[in-house]
Amino acid sequence: MKKNRLIVQKYGGTSVSDVKKIENAASRIKRYYKNGYKVIAVVSAMGHTTDELISLAKKINPYPIEREMDMLISTGEQISCALLTMALHKKGIDAVSFVGHQAGIITDTIHTKAKIIKINASRLKKAINRGKVAIVAGFQGISPQEDITTLGRGGSDLTAVALAAILGAEVCEIYTDVSGIYTADPRIEPKAKKLDYISFDEMLELASRGAQVMHTRAVEVAKKFNLPLHIRGSFTNKEGTIVMQKNAKIEEPAVRGIAIAEDEVKVTICDVLDKPGIAAVIFSYLAKANINVDMIVQNVSRKGTTDISFTVAKDNLPATVNAIKKNVDKIKANDILVDENIAKISIIGVGMKVHSGVAAKCFSALAKSKINIEMISTSEISISCVVRKQDGKKAVRALHSEFGLSRKINRKK
Amino acid sequence: MKKNRLIVQKYGGTSVSDVKKIENAASRIKRYYKNGYKVIAVVSAMGHTTDELISLAKKINPYPIEREMDMLISTGEQISCALLTMALHKKGIDAVSFVGHQAGIITDTIHTKAKIIKINASRLKKAINRGKVAIVAGFQGISPQEDITTLGRGGSDLTAVALAAILGAEVCEIYTDVSGIYTADPRIEPKAKKLDYISFDEMLELASRGAQVMHTRAVEVAKKFNLPLHIRGSFTNKEGTIVMQKNAKIEEPAVRGIAIAEDEVKVTICDVLDKPGIAAVIFSYLAKANINVDMIVQNVSRKGTTDISFTVAKDNLPATVNAIKKNVDKIKANDILVDENIAKISIIGVGMKVHSGVAAKCFSALAKSKINIEMISTSEISISCVVRKQDGKKAVRALHSEFGLSRKINRKK
Repeated sequence: MKKNRLIVQKYGGTSVSDVKKIENAASRIKRYYKNGYKVIAVVSAMGHTTDELISLAKKINPYPIEREMDMLISTGEQISCALLTMALHKKGIDAVSFVGHQAGIITDTIHTKAKIIKINASRLKKAINRGKVAIVAGFQGISPQEDITTLGRGGSDLTAVALAAILGAEVCEIYTDVSGIYTADPRIEPKAKKLDYISFDEMLELASRGAQVMHTRAVEVAKKFNLPLHIRGSFTNKEGTIVMQKNAKIEEPAVRGIAIAEDEVKVTICDVLDKPGIAAVIFSYLAKANINVDMIVQNVSRKGTTDISFTVAKDNLPATVNAIKKNVDKIKANDILVDENIAKISIIGVGMKVHSGVAAKCFSALAKSKINIEMISTSEISISCVVRKQDGKKAVRALHSEFGLSRKINRKK
Repeated sequence: MKKNRLIVQKYGGTSVSDVKKIENAASRIKRYYKNGYKVIAVVSAMGHTTDELISLAKKINPYPIEREMDMLISTGEQISCALLTMALHKKGIDAVSFVGHQAGIITDTIHTKAKIIKINASRLKKAINRGKVAIVAGFQGISPQEDITTLGRGGSDLTAVALAAILGAEVCEIYTDVSGIYTADPRIEPKAKKLDYISFDEMLELASRGAQVMHTRAVEVAKKFNLPLHIRGSFTNKEGTIVMQKNAKIEEPAVRGIAIAEDEVKVTICDVLDKPGIAAVIFSYLAKANINVDMIVQNVSRKGTTDISFTVAKDNLPATVNAIKKNVDKIKANDILVDENIAKISIIGVGMKVHSGVAAKCFSALAKSKINIEMISTSEISISCVVRKQDGKKAVRALHSEFGLSRKINRKK
């Protein structure tokens, strides 16, 4: 018996999208419970429920106030959490459901993307200490004013990780529709291999560079609390990928994975006056509008003017163009060009810190495949290149092969 | 300007069943608000949402625990209340939504049929005093342990009436799919007339005798607080029926309305030992099982045994038969007969107290139409008769005509 060992599990929308899948999740929880674990399961809304609620809202009001959006969409998780609890009762397991305020998840008041400021987990603790399984509605919390809030994209991951961290769970399992983290998207590179484990930093880079399995905020919290994550498939019992602190004893291969982001656009501001501080001015306007800019390239100056290019998420394009147009007098720009036809390819690996020549190898691999690189940015553990969208998948495969990622790498913990 | 005048409105499921109807409700609220009223609107779940959630739950667990049912079905009202609020914002009205715990509706812990024990309306008051329209999710509350509860059938009516009573609203408007209270169901008696007003007692009798417009619990609370109700149609601006205290100055016609209940069954326990107190024994078993028995008839004794018949709601039939079978030894009954083929017709009117001969007139009207009466029960202001189900509608028409209810009666307040 593994008495007093706590595990937190998170079931994503695809893992509870219908009655059968909810029953599967309940069976899995029962198995852990019967093995002596204390279990807290955090659930997302069933399948596409959240999207359906959002589209219903937009029919009524194209610009709904965010407090009311939270009131509306938080029902999705409330439904799945009640249903999963009922499924456990059917299997003879004593379970109890919790929505945000019952689980004591206190957030700030930034509706639709609230931050957790405190967790009063006394009620949850009492339930698990009495031998109950606790089912928690993910993605939601309550503000100090008792308004319902939601945590934004990836919010249920965050709920699970935060609860696991604060309650001292030995691991937080993230059940999803893929069976782990791969060296590249297997739909693009069939030779992609599942990684047995990966470091927090590598996972953060992968997530922020386009791998959609987990949101960066949740990984950041796990890293901060040194809480191991186990990302694994809902429909298999095979081990997935453990995300944990880097183990210094094992030599790292230079590159661990390749990510591709196809939902970004390149914006070029033409003929900007080339004087000191102009870039700072431009990007402060964008920052004020809450727009995250990624790669930035400034061209060589011609006749006192220059072009500045950067990438933003496609969703942020209208806000970006607005912010620039509103300030076009101060920037003295001539024109704004938008190029949606790009893909961003990133290679990621903690080992890049110590291995030299990774960048050169990357660029030459793309050159060999006749793929033109339009923008480059690097961090300590990643290199990103913008290429034409039609070259994106080819670039993933070229780099995957160049860095030998299809060889099975079995690293011990 | 009608400053400081508060109105509480309740929109039933059919009044908010789609986007268009939610917009209609918002337009109506806006009109009142612009006329200077403070408005609190209580909403039910959209259309058949609650039924759909219940059927989803039953697929997962045929006997779901009631706490989890409340967690599940309370989402229906939460959704419609967020959407109605968004619709008001679209029309430029400052509105804010409240679920049960935010509206301060504290209930006992009897899940799925909780009773309101207290209302902490400070947050609601603050909102309306700041010029906001308050939209409240009906049907739900929160227990002192912070569990979500629901109030059972007609729960949203109860939410509206309780809020109106405690906040001193001048009227509680109940918007529904019929345009008021009629002398009889117009689908059965086309000559039925809408009543301009009706007393609380008459409304209570009508509701408990089968008129499904409003649940008795809400009428009882309105009566207790002497809060006028206005039952009216969602899709018309015409006045409906005012439910209020009896106005002694106006002479009452004997009979105000006819109700028909077709969802009851007659249960007969045969050959019960005819000794004193046997009926008390039987009905105490049923009371213990929370079964409300309506009409009771005990036959003349034959050879020391007797038959006892009574009616119960069809939903309660399995529980009724169980309760009797479990105790059949003590009752010494021989057989249980169930007759689903009945209808209960009731004539209701406060004036019956002072008009003699109403019962005789009722029975002779049914006799003239060759309708056999199987059971009779009377109260101070009503007479009910059980007849064959196929005679039910004919009986309604016969009584409607006998008591002259198709003449328009315009009584002033």
